[in-house]
Amino acid sequence: MKENTYDFGLIGLGVMGRNFILNVADNGFTAFGYDLDAGQVQALQEEGGDRSKVDATTDLPTFVKSLSTPRKIMLLVPAGKIVDAVIDNLLPHLDKGDIIIDGGNSFFTDTDRREAYLSEKGINFFGAGVSGGAKGARRGPSIMPGGSKQGYSEVKPIFEAVAAKFEGEPCVAYLGPKSAGNYVKMVHNGIEYGLMQLTSEIYDLLKKSGGLSNEQLHQTFSEWNRGRLQSFLVEITAQIFDQKDDLGEGSLVDKILDKAKQKGTGKWTSQNAMDLGIPIPTIDIAVSMREISALKDDRVAADQVYDRPEIQPMTEGALEELAENALYFAFIITYAQGMHQLAEASKEYGYELDMTTIAKIWRAGCIIRAGLLEDIASAYSQDKKLVNLLMSPEFTGKVQSTVNAARTLVSYGALNGIPLPGLSNALTYFDAFTSSRLPLNLIQAQRDHFGSHTYERTDREGIFHTNWEV
Amino acid sequence: MKENTYDFGLIGLGVMGRNFILNVADNGFTAFGYDLDAGQVQALQEEGGDRSKVDATTDLPTFVKSLSTPRKIMLLVPAGKIVDAVIDNLLPHLDKGDIIIDGGNSFFTDTDRREAYLSEKGINFFGAGVSGGAKGARRGPSIMPGGSKQGYSEVKPIFEAVAAKFEGEPCVAYLGPKSAGNYVKMVHNGIEYGLMQLTSEIYDLLKKSGGLSNEQLHQTFSEWNRGRLQSFLVEITAQIFDQKDDLGEGSLVDKILDKAKQKGTGKWTSQNAMDLGIPIPTIDIAVSMREISALKDDRVAADQVYDRPEIQPMTEGALEELAENALYFAFIITYAQGMHQLAEASKEYGYELDMTTIAKIWRAGCIIRAGLLEDIASAYSQDKKLVNLLMSPEFTGKVQSTVNAARTLVSYGALNGIPLPGLSNALTYFDAFTSSRLPLNLIQAQRDHFGSHTYERTDREGIFHTNWEV
Repeated sequence: MKENTYDFGLIGLGVMGRNFILNVADNGFTAFGYDLDAGQVQALQEEGGDRSKVDATTDLPTFVKSLSTPRKIMLLVPAGKIVDAVIDNLLPHLDKGDIIIDGGNSFFTDTDRREAYLSEKGINFFGAGVSGGAKGARRGPSIMPGGSKQGYSEVKPIFEAVAAKFEGEPCVAYLGPKSAGNYVKMVHNGIEYGLMQLTSEIYDLLKKSGGLSNEQLHQTFSEWNRGRLQSFLVEITAQIFDQKDDLGEGSLVDKILDKAKQKGTGKWTSQNAMDLGIPIPTIDIAVSMREISALKDDRVAADQVYDRPEIQPMTEGALEELAENALYFAFIITYAQGMHQLAEASKEYGYELDMTTIAKIWRAGCIIRAGLLEDIASAYSQDKKLVNLLMSPEFTGKVQSTVNAARTLVSYGALNGIPLPGLSNALTYFDAFTSSRLPLNLIQAQRDHFGSHTYERTDREGIFHTNWEV
Repeated sequence: MKENTYDFGLIGLGVMGRNFILNVADNGFTAFGYDLDAGQVQALQEEGGDRSKVDATTDLPTFVKSLSTPRKIMLLVPAGKIVDAVIDNLLPHLDKGDIIIDGGNSFFTDTDRREAYLSEKGINFFGAGVSGGAKGARRGPSIMPGGSKQGYSEVKPIFEAVAAKFEGEPCVAYLGPKSAGNYVKMVHNGIEYGLMQLTSEIYDLLKKSGGLSNEQLHQTFSEWNRGRLQSFLVEITAQIFDQKDDLGEGSLVDKILDKAKQKGTGKWTSQNAMDLGIPIPTIDIAVSMREISALKDDRVAADQVYDRPEIQPMTEGALEELAENALYFAFIITYAQGMHQLAEASKEYGYELDMTTIAKIWRAGCIIRAGLLEDIASAYSQDKKLVNLLMSPEFTGKVQSTVNAARTLVSYGALNGIPLPGLSNALTYFDAFTSSRLPLNLIQAQRDHFGSHTYERTDREGIFHTNWEV
């Protein structure tokens, strides 16, 4: 190792970190890694080959000395207190002007706090969400940086080189001040929760109602992935149904326990949307469904107590065609909810987000990449102030032509005891969002009746209270 | 005013505070109020009459001196920083052993912080949720105290006197340590959000599909209130449909703007349920619907862009009978979700809640009082460790016999464009909770595919990861 020569430093050599640093090296930059775990260091050295291009150490001073100045150090460590600990360990070794990038899923207010703390010390800190999983990190992720613009400008050539490319355009862009990068990544993950829940429901429907085998499911999702549903999640869903069980007979998917785990970003998305007052019920219910899935013992017990309707065949149309339409409808609604949240967060937190840019850098590399993002980018470039995708001419026809399939399937699921909570919430969200009059006048009446909370009227300005007759 | 003689002090003489203190005086205790606003002080003095029994002041030292020791001072002020400010103003005037009660909807972690802060100073502090609105405060609310048991014991005779009575039993009981009282009140309000959303949906359905007039709605809800749906919210809903507009022709409910406000307790319930990992989707969607209702301008614009199905008559049965069944089903589900959250919070936060006691003190006085609470109390007294009401023999028959009405109406609403989001979420929650197998094995497969997040298997112990073929 030569001192002060490596272009890029990375702390945390787990799967994501190792792959990211190898990606950096592949793109002609020299990179140095650090991890407390000697095994991770060795794994990187072995995979990296030429140590003059990529090397690693378990010794922090060695790591810091290896880097050219201003040092560019990226953290890919678990969100939370570990990030603070790593930063505090690093600080004594750094100089003013050095750059720290948090590439993890840190909660956005933590990023704001850290940026304030480090800017006082002359360190350029910024959060950059990274999506694409292990493979994305290796071959090209989508990167969502925000925060210190000056810090980002130093790292920009490296990030643009390593990022996924969509028709030659790198899937990375400076998104806005403060925690804009982590926030956008959080909502990305919330959308991801929604899309995953929806694919799982449609799988359930096709299996229970249509009796589709895993081979047929593989074919169906593969075919869908060649059409307007083209997306990473539909693509891997097709692959999943094709995967044989390496420990036994049949398909692996049938052996996987139906308890879905979560790491918190979907939950954060829902919780923060509530703080902003933006409805994202398709994402909310995806969080709830992971929770319900985790209550496996209760579910097994409850299943024995209650009768379930016998599933009747679908008579209203071709099941797979309905499913494709409904899934497309619900995917649009899920993106619409997430983008709506981003637009509001941009105002609330001063992120100055450009929605077109966000849609564009999601077109490749990340987990929610999909053909639909081209249309979303187009919708926002046509109307910078667009509140909700449902209001874009780019989407009205697409939504209007598919909503009836969602109606048919939600109705069918309800009658036949097949839970389609994500699809249901996409539909009721649509029906409520497009209702000029909702029955919540009754709720305002109730609130005024029991709590004197007052109400507004439809026919005149002002705030009113009634002494309700009882 | 005689010094050191009044039994009870109350800070914050708004509608709730004034009514609560008059209630105390009615029950033979002397009480003294404090408010910065001389108008509020005067209003109380006029309504209270005999100043040796109830009096008030705008001067804090006068207020404190009026009270017998240990002083019992209740705060009914808006949640948030005002509570801290009032406490800090009070402190210099208090002696060790004095009692402060926060009767507002404070966030539970604020209560924990304040209790720790004040116990160091020798002050017995506890939070006590109060429900029942203005009328409840005056004639008998449900009171949910937690925290300092010693502090509560001093106030117990007063609270038991002023609380609502259910067949002679006061609707107040010490619920548990720390913020147990505020927490239980928060979830009470979350359930309230769910029940209100459900009544508004059923109103919409009866009006749009059945063409019921306000007079017919009044009759229908009145009749329901005489049956198993008997509850405060159904009762006032009936009254609301009977209320004439005092500023014009017709019924007042039709003139009320359909933008529902919220003060945050429903949102907190949903956000905290996500932290606990407990699914409460009927409450979540009630929060979302208030948010959607607030987006009135967007809704009006969207309504013009999209076509809505023409509403077809209900052919599957008598609409009102179906609605009564479905509403009963969804009310049960909403209580089940809220109680499930309380049971988990009790473990997580060490509240040692007795679920039977909670159900009992909600039987009168509070906004969610309902005949159903008798059954809920019974369910938990039969099984102290009951996880979810759906698993209680007290409820399985009630749920099984009404779920098909929910199926019919959710199906009908989906096909006809009448949004029934609360009912839908009650149904999909039920269908998911009673499914021994959910399709979230696919989500675990996806997570392992893109993020190497590992999965469990149905046929053997352990944690597995697959190198997915692509």
